[in-house]
Amino acid sequence: MKKLINGADDVVDEMLDGMARAYPQYLRRLDGLDVVVRVGGSAGKVALVSGGGSGHEPAHGGYVGKGMLDAAVSGAVFTSPTPDQVYEAILAANGGRGVLLVIKNYTGDVMNFEMAADMARDEGIEVEQVIVADDVAVEGSTWTVGRRGIAGTVFVHKIAGACAEAGADLAEVRRVAQKVVENVRSMGMALAACTVPSAGRPGFDLAEDEMEIGIGIHGEPGVAREPVAPADDVVDELLEKILAEGIYGAGDEVAVMVNGMGATPLMELFVANRHLGEELSARGIRVHRTMVGNYMTSLDMAGFSITLLKLDDELKALLDAPCDTPALTQA
Amino acid sequence: MKKLINGADDVVDEMLDGMARAYPQYLRRLDGLDVVVRVGGSAGKVALVSGGGSGHEPAHGGYVGKGMLDAAVSGAVFTSPTPDQVYEAILAANGGRGVLLVIKNYTGDVMNFEMAADMARDEGIEVEQVIVADDVAVEGSTWTVGRRGIAGTVFVHKIAGACAEAGADLAEVRRVAQKVVENVRSMGMALAACTVPSAGRPGFDLAEDEMEIGIGIHGEPGVAREPVAPADDVVDELLEKILAEGIYGAGDEVAVMVNGMGATPLMELFVANRHLGEELSARGIRVHRTMVGNYMTSLDMAGFSITLLKLDDELKALLDAPCDTPALTQA
Repeated sequence: MKKLINGADDVVDEMLDGMARAYPQYLRRLDGLDVVVRVGGSAGKVALVSGGGSGHEPAHGGYVGKGMLDAAVSGAVFTSPTPDQVYEAILAANGGRGVLLVIKNYTGDVMNFEMAADMARDEGIEVEQVIVADDVAVEGSTWTVGRRGIAGTVFVHKIAGACAEAGADLAEVRRVAQKVVENVRSMGMALAACTVPSAGRPGFDLAEDEMEIGIGIHGEPGVAREPVAPADDVVDELLEKILAEGIYGAGDEVAVMVNGMGATPLMELFVANRHLGEELSARGIRVHRTMVGNYMTSLDMAGFSITLLKLDDELKALLDAPCDTPALTQA
Repeated sequence: MKKLINGADDVVDEMLDGMARAYPQYLRRLDGLDVVVRVGGSAGKVALVSGGGSGHEPAHGGYVGKGMLDAAVSGAVFTSPTPDQVYEAILAANGGRGVLLVIKNYTGDVMNFEMAADMARDEGIEVEQVIVADDVAVEGSTWTVGRRGIAGTVFVHKIAGACAEAGADLAEVRRVAQKVVENVRSMGMALAACTVPSAGRPGFDLAEDEMEIGIGIHGEPGVAREPVAPADDVVDELLEKILAEGIYGAGDEVAVMVNGMGATPLMELFVANRHLGEELSARGIRVHRTMVGNYMTSLDMAGFSITLLKLDDELKALLDAPCDTPALTQA
């Protein structure tokens, strides 16, 4: 295992310190906790709290700031944060108008975030939640009952965050977040597995001529191992599965995310986006906005995912609203 | 070689199409050329043109937009763009107040950009240039006479771009760009080499326990091969070489870039930034702004570089000015 780290046991702690050092204008780390909160506070607005295992950077700390998250909680690598850490994040983020938890659908995350929500409610804080389950690859896995939450989660942060920033109440922010959840779908693939620092070796092995279709973001194997194919064919395969959901059709407007898994050059993501754009256009699906880059990663996995979000006027306006965070700023 | 591409011969062309599809709000591709230009044009301002071989994404097309570049030219992977392509970029970017070329110090780049400048001057366009040579690792290499230009170039784009956006004339924009060149230094390392698509194999081989110190951004080997060390020791080694320049001392304010080479997880870059921040602080060097991410990459190389830029009030104000481009937006 080759990694630019000091030790597997210290990686999350040191990463969070490094993040806080990099972005004092955006966030600060809570003393002794693996939680970063928005600088300037969230008084007078609904607060958004998200998080999950580490290893998905820039998610989730990178989305803390104006128009997105108010706090992010980090667990160990690919491990749910504990309820007490989530609870502290809720307390710190709460600005008096309630807290929305954005949870990716993994058994541990859902359990621990819900436990924290109960603890916070006992303190009189209004807490609601949405569960993101955008991955169409599998209906259940090592880590999940039901579908997994992956890169589509970033659209929930952006759109619900804009809604909260505009002063909406908790029920309204939750409604909008849930609308994104219902209209967003993703699917990913890998050319190479990632290596969890404490494990020291890749989560699965792929031969030089193999790729894995339908991977998640936790180093878990996918649903099919296939010979490496040209980029356009890979895009076709992922897109077909996403379109089979029946959500996206001619005349619809969508937001597109071509998300790198951590070790994929931007060059390759643009090559994928070219064909994706062509295919959507051929189907009469209009692209309103495209994001290409590393938004929800899986350590050093080589691969990518495609996410589509169907937009209406409300979602479009919120997606286009300004935001200012370490990983996503819109003027 | 595992890459998400269709064919090595098409990769630059398809990448540029994918980039243009992703960011119609920022840039458009010139017909039949490997040039992207800013949407909305550059009338009434000094235009900035940069570029170089492909494989450094998001450089340089990702920096085309408000407050940074007006055009970017892409050569083949790790190959200088031809003079005629640079010439077309100058023509398209020119808004009537002259054009500044930001050139990284590689023999081919300097020659071809200068030839293009001469062609443009023959058409009556005022053209000036700066040459970025921030890499302290080597004084000459396969690709260069003198020092190489690497990630520090992004600071030139940002600061000279802000100066041009504010309405300065060509001499003034050049002066400011040159001031950045004189105050910026970088050094990089790799845990794994990158693979040029047409070559099909890594540019050099590293054993499982080796790293390469002093690499550039073209897959060229570095200046020393050493056993893999903890991140903090690697940071110390790069920083020591940069500080030996004698530019940065107690009481100075700097901008910091911790730049990923393409396949390095953000987690590891934050771990590096933690120790870098500590070391700078211990020396009384104040960090005004930090950028952590993939800004000037080398395909799928695993590794990173550190860049320091000494700031005065003028550079600070220009660095902090708003910009709006695909790869860097500041509110």
